[in-house]
Amino acid sequence: MSQKLRAAMIGGGPGSFIGGVHRIAARIDGDYELVAGAFSSKPEKCLETARELGISEDRAYGSWQELLSSELERPAQERVQVIMITTPNHVHAAPTIAALEAGYHVVLDKPLCTSMDEAYAIEAAVNNAKGLFCLTHTYTGYPMVKEAKHQIASGALGKVRKIYVEYPQGWLSTFLEGEGQTQAAWRTDPTKSGKVGAMGDIGTHAFNLAEYISGEQLIEVCAQLNIVVPGRALDDDGAVLFRTTSGATGVLMATQIAAGEENNLKIRVYGEKGGLCWEQKDNNTLTMMPLDAPVTVLRTGGPGTSEMSLANHRVPPGHPEGYLEAFANLYKNFAAHVRAHEAGQAQHPHLDYPGIEDGVRGMKFIEAIVANNAGTEKYTAL
Amino acid sequence: MSQKLRAAMIGGGPGSFIGGVHRIAARIDGDYELVAGAFSSKPEKCLETARELGISEDRAYGSWQELLSSELERPAQERVQVIMITTPNHVHAAPTIAALEAGYHVVLDKPLCTSMDEAYAIEAAVNNAKGLFCLTHTYTGYPMVKEAKHQIASGALGKVRKIYVEYPQGWLSTFLEGEGQTQAAWRTDPTKSGKVGAMGDIGTHAFNLAEYISGEQLIEVCAQLNIVVPGRALDDDGAVLFRTTSGATGVLMATQIAAGEENNLKIRVYGEKGGLCWEQKDNNTLTMMPLDAPVTVLRTGGPGTSEMSLANHRVPPGHPEGYLEAFANLYKNFAAHVRAHEAGQAQHPHLDYPGIEDGVRGMKFIEAIVANNAGTEKYTAL
Amino acid sequence: MSQKLRAAMIGGGPGSFIGGVHRIAARIDGDYELVAGAFSSKPEKCLETARELGISEDRAYGSWQELLSSELERPAQERVQVIMITTPNHVHAAPTIAALEAGYHVVLDKPLCTSMDEAYAIEAAVNNAKGLFCLTHTYTGYPMVKEAKHQIASGALGKVRKIYVEYPQGWLSTFLEGEGQTQAAWRTDPTKSGKVGAMGDIGTHAFNLAEYISGEQLIEVCAQLNIVVPGRALDDDGAVLFRTTSGATGVLMATQIAAGEENNLKIRVYGEKGGLCWEQKDNNTLTMMPLDAPVTVLRTGGPGTSEMSLANHRVPPGHPEGYLEAFANLYKNFAAHVRAHEAGQAQHPHLDYPGIEDGVRGMKFIEAIVANNAGTEKYTAL
Amino acid sequence: MSQKLRAAMIGGGPGSFIGGVHRIAARIDGDYELVAGAFSSKPEKCLETARELGISEDRAYGSWQELLSSELERPAQERVQVIMITTPNHVHAAPTIAALEAGYHVVLDKPLCTSMDEAYAIEAAVNNAKGLFCLTHTYTGYPMVKEAKHQIASGALGKVRKIYVEYPQGWLSTFLEGEGQTQAAWRTDPTKSGKVGAMGDIGTHAFNLAEYISGEQLIEVCAQLNIVVPGRALDDDGAVLFRTTSGATGVLMATQIAAGEENNLKIRVYGEKGGLCWEQKDNNTLTMMPLDAPVTVLRTGGPGTSEMSLANHRVPPGHPEGYLEAFANLYKNFAAHVRAHEAGQAQHPHLDYPGIEDGVRGMKFIEAIVANNAGTEKYTAL
Repeated sequence: MSQKLRAAMIGGGPGSFIGGVHRIAARIDGDYELVAGAFSSKPEKCLETARELGISEDRAYGSWQELLSSELERPAQERVQVIMITTPNHVHAAPTIAALEAGYHVVLDKPLCTSMDEAYAIEAAVNNAKGLFCLTHTYTGYPMVKEAKHQIASGALGKVRKIYVEYPQGWLSTFLEGEGQTQAAWRTDPTKSGKVGAMGDIGTHAFNLAEYISGEQLIEVCAQLNIVVPGRALDDDGAVLFRTTSGATGVLMATQIAAGEENNLKIRVYGEKGGLCWEQKDNNTLTMMPLDAPVTVLRTGGPGTSEMSLANHRVPPGHPEGYLEAFANLYKNFAAHVRAHEAGQAQHPHLDYPGIEDGVRGMKFIEAIVANNAGTEKYTAL
Repeated sequence: MSQKLRAAMIGGGPGSFIGGVHRIAARIDGDYELVAGAFSSKPEKCLETARELGISEDRAYGSWQELLSSELERPAQERVQVIMITTPNHVHAAPTIAALEAGYHVVLDKPLCTSMDEAYAIEAAVNNAKGLFCLTHTYTGYPMVKEAKHQIASGALGKVRKIYVEYPQGWLSTFLEGEGQTQAAWRTDPTKSGKVGAMGDIGTHAFNLAEYISGEQLIEVCAQLNIVVPGRALDDDGAVLFRTTSGATGVLMATQIAAGEENNLKIRVYGEKGGLCWEQKDNNTLTMMPLDAPVTVLRTGGPGTSEMSLANHRVPPGHPEGYLEAFANLYKNFAAHVRAHEAGQAQHPHLDYPGIEDGVRGMKFIEAIVANNAGTEKYTAL
Repeated sequence: MSQKLRAAMIGGGPGSFIGGVHRIAARIDGDYELVAGAFSSKPEKCLETARELGISEDRAYGSWQELLSSELERPAQERVQVIMITTPNHVHAAPTIAALEAGYHVVLDKPLCTSMDEAYAIEAAVNNAKGLFCLTHTYTGYPMVKEAKHQIASGALGKVRKIYVEYPQGWLSTFLEGEGQTQAAWRTDPTKSGKVGAMGDIGTHAFNLAEYISGEQLIEVCAQLNIVVPGRALDDDGAVLFRTTSGATGVLMATQIAAGEENNLKIRVYGEKGGLCWEQKDNNTLTMMPLDAPVTVLRTGGPGTSEMSLANHRVPPGHPEGYLEAFANLYKNFAAHVRAHEAGQAQHPHLDYPGIEDGVRGMKFIEAIVANNAGTEKYTAL
Repeated sequence: MSQKLRAAMIGGGPGSFIGGVHRIAARIDGDYELVAGAFSSKPEKCLETARELGISEDRAYGSWQELLSSELERPAQERVQVIMITTPNHVHAAPTIAALEAGYHVVLDKPLCTSMDEAYAIEAAVNNAKGLFCLTHTYTGYPMVKEAKHQIASGALGKVRKIYVEYPQGWLSTFLEGEGQTQAAWRTDPTKSGKVGAMGDIGTHAFNLAEYISGEQLIEVCAQLNIVVPGRALDDDGAVLFRTTSGATGVLMATQIAAGEENNLKIRVYGEKGGLCWEQKDNNTLTMMPLDAPVTVLRTGGPGTSEMSLANHRVPPGHPEGYLEAFANLYKNFAAHVRAHEAGQAQHPHLDYPGIEDGVRGMKFIEAIVANNAGTEKYTAL
């Protein structure tokens, strides 16, 4: 591994949830060293976070623009290499594009952005960039999610017929945004979150998981978006019937008003020859349900698993790995690609991570469900 | 209890699945004595079943018409009181109406029938009948399904907001009806099953469960019905987005091509104050998920349960009761009502069973989803 | 099947738990008709139960002696064939021996009796009897318990190495017998229950399950019996280290003071080539854990199961069968043996039921653990 | 936090499992910077690991003695502060004592050492040391293990009556040490592992967990240690009956020949007022089983949990944390204590970690079970 990649974070100041998660994820495998940040637009808050993290004050920048330009002026062996962006959705496109144009590698929190225009602009920037781009659809980092993808890709289920994917949360069951809860406030604010609430925050995760695992692409959707909690400005609940490229159908459910639910993201895929099931609550298990044979249970690191998952876990089977390790797999694999990229080498096929295609797909999904929900036609093409 | 109710069965001959289930269900609590039957339209098959069951040959009738008329000629203290009808769907309406008109009590397997016309005719017969009528939507017989109904009715969840109900099976993943499998053959045959396949067979169970537990009625649906297995004549898969009387929304999923699935009927209901979850796989458990408090687990016969479930179970908590006991609860409660009815008494409110309203609702549901699936409008009223 | 077997019950009057369970178990498959009983030593209570069950008053006997002799005087085609004995433990030996000597078939609730002397006397009676004898160690009636036995017998685990069996209950966590609770009172009374409390009531179930499934016999034990609740006269908790014939070892745990536990009887057996796990809470599942291969999950009636379990279930996989069906399997299989016995035929090997050997083994187990617990030696031979 | 603690590792070279785990654990919360190491007694292997970890070659020492002395010669602001020791058991005592005497803080992998003499020597060193000492009994780092301890300490169960603790593994089901498997080789070698095999490797974890959660101390044991796999030099299986200070009893089971098992460490504790259950497989759940009230389910970070667990987790409920986070809690809490210690401050009571007392207790447990197993008396005092 030799040298750690020097990283800087945009966002992730006091009160941020996801900023801290990105920092842990980047630390776990020792591939990154966080050396700079524009953690907050308020200077004292930015400094507060820098001090907590042991970052020298001269690299705690007052704005992401300053961060990007000032770091460029440092000597190459000292300069930041990777920009981690963990701001609210409406501050995704600008810093991402600027960072890519400035030659940095970028890790961006999902969803990609707040409009198709922004999405295409980021896509263009990625395609023209010297650096690489990762979009943190965390859940694709779970070993058994990768195993599920592998099993389907290698034909274990035969042709895919049916997909059920669901992401129930309960934390927005009350009007939290009216009580000053930071996380609730920006997520339910159209000027910060975009056209959708729950569907952007967690629906896109479910969508991404479904396309990642199944190898299918959704081609048309029939959506019902609901605002359940009175006073809320964006959807906090929704369900989508869909069809895929190969003719499979499915249902996607995402809700933030399922009182009592935590984050039980779950996916089931059925094909001609069998089905499979994965859920976050029991993330180290992949249940394989072959047609006319007993269910078999694959476990992270356990017998019968493939290189696809074995390359993405850390400890012997039975020692649970979780959300942070899944997140860390994105950072770990991205680091491997960055190093290979800089060395002009090819990268191991099992060390994958989500990128711009996932981001653009997610935005198309949002566009389509918003249009379908607002219109009268039954299905809308993606 | 004193005397057992004398019962006769229509259908349930060799090769029948559900006939045997009805017989066990009627036996468990000792309320019925099966003394006659028109088990099959083929005389030798009818006799075969009669002999297996220890029924005297002179009460093994060649047709249901003969059964109904011949029994009437017997002395009152010997004559059959309850007619159990377990024929395929297209032979539901006629014997049910005839039996009711002849003064018998009737227990009919679900779904009610194959058309709205039949449904209304049966409804009229029930309303005019001297006898009582039970439609065997089995799943409402589970103690913890009753407990779920009670919890919601007593306000544990507050106003209902979201309902997810699903019934995945995998047994029709292949073209079984082409291989001479009896159960598959009639269920996928429009002349015997009606307008729908999976949606009639198991979708109506899911629908009934959702309305029973939630206390809501579906008022509009957006349906996607699919024929997945090539050559099949009726839907083997489908999903429905719906809205209810009180403004809640939900998703109903029913499929018979979910390879590897058994019969994992499952329902989740969320309200303003919490959620609950029940699934057949773990039928003696009801998971209560209050908002902002730990999950509690109610168990058949266990602490914290209400009279509604306590009146509908048999053994101490931890000794699993299952599908046959749930089915038996329908028969047990129907017997209690029949006895009370004949004695001119009121019946215990906890000893409920599904009736004609459930049957008509189910038929309306089928009508609406078939119309919606065939049409272009997004939602169809129920 | 033709004719039902005519049965009479000794015990099972008002307040009895297990009597009602035996009656349901005998009804489920329609093999028996309960026509007589000595339900209680108090005549009015005996009559009360007879009336509830629709048994004619002249066959509601004031004592088991009267029942046995009076029935003998009836014509053969009317006379009781099977005696079901569900009295407390201290009233097991006498009626069992008398019934066998009188030529009846006997179904006796476990444990066999209260001493080795009684056990050997019953054994002699069984060996000399014209009729057959069944001891209702219920748990061996579960389809997946039978499947577990089959898997081990057919070598799936290789040589057995380790057995863990446990039966935790919590219902005797308080001094219930001091509050007039009938079930608690006799179970904790040495004059009615015998030398042991929890170990006789549920420890013998665990013991029987371990020997039945593993095919091993325990040859020495090291026991710790505890009286946890102050004032109690018999053990309410205990654990046993043991060795078996083939050199395997194991642990047996039985307790009635595990507050919050229901009846989670559970067994795990490990061999050279893999392990298996079964628990009552999820009784339709048998988890097979092969060495160096993924876990597979066998399900009642599902793919990969053997005739041994397929011959002992009723409904398609996914419709849970439970405790009453397990109990019914004992009665069903016993009926099959009785009919074959009377017809001079051999009986199907999969239709097994526990008998006198199980009973004598259980009594030896009790003797050995009582001696070991009272003495100073580490291990006591069985 | 400001400055990271400078750390060095002894052991953890190529082929080590636990060394890598310690490094991840130390990284997760960003409290430590690994700057030096004596990773292997073979210089080239030590350098290999140093290079992989980005440690400068002049701090890759050929021996732990050299590490301890050389680092002392560095300037205080550069010098290593914490020594992480991850060598096999027989190389625990000497470097630990030397490091403590030299003024370092020490984190030592469990078990403490290989004999009581060593244990007392380490205890003396700890008591006289300037620095602090942590023994990595990982499992006490799980948030819901801490919650379990808190629940019992705060009286939720009343007086403790019964403890079941078990740690089944299957990985030593075959003679792996004969196939050159490194991890198997030293763990089954008495010269490296000590007097016990499975009981030292995982039995001490189970023992530590039982005493930590219950607040009880074991005072006498009755042990059965077995060598199951032919040719093995140390126990690979065992079970222990025990009594505790307050009169509770329990069973401890640890095995490495439970074919098919991963690492399902599990503990159940029952008291006068209820029971609780925790298992590693579902580590974010703590099941509370109150007497005569429904089970409640506490979840990491969820409602109803106390400061004791809330202070020891990172992400919102429903995002699983696992083994590495549990391990990281030891490092995080140790860092907090080291910083407070150096600043002369008191430390937060919820940020606990296992120390020398746990280590000495574990060694006494080993002594007692070895003596009991070898002798003829039924119980041996601890």
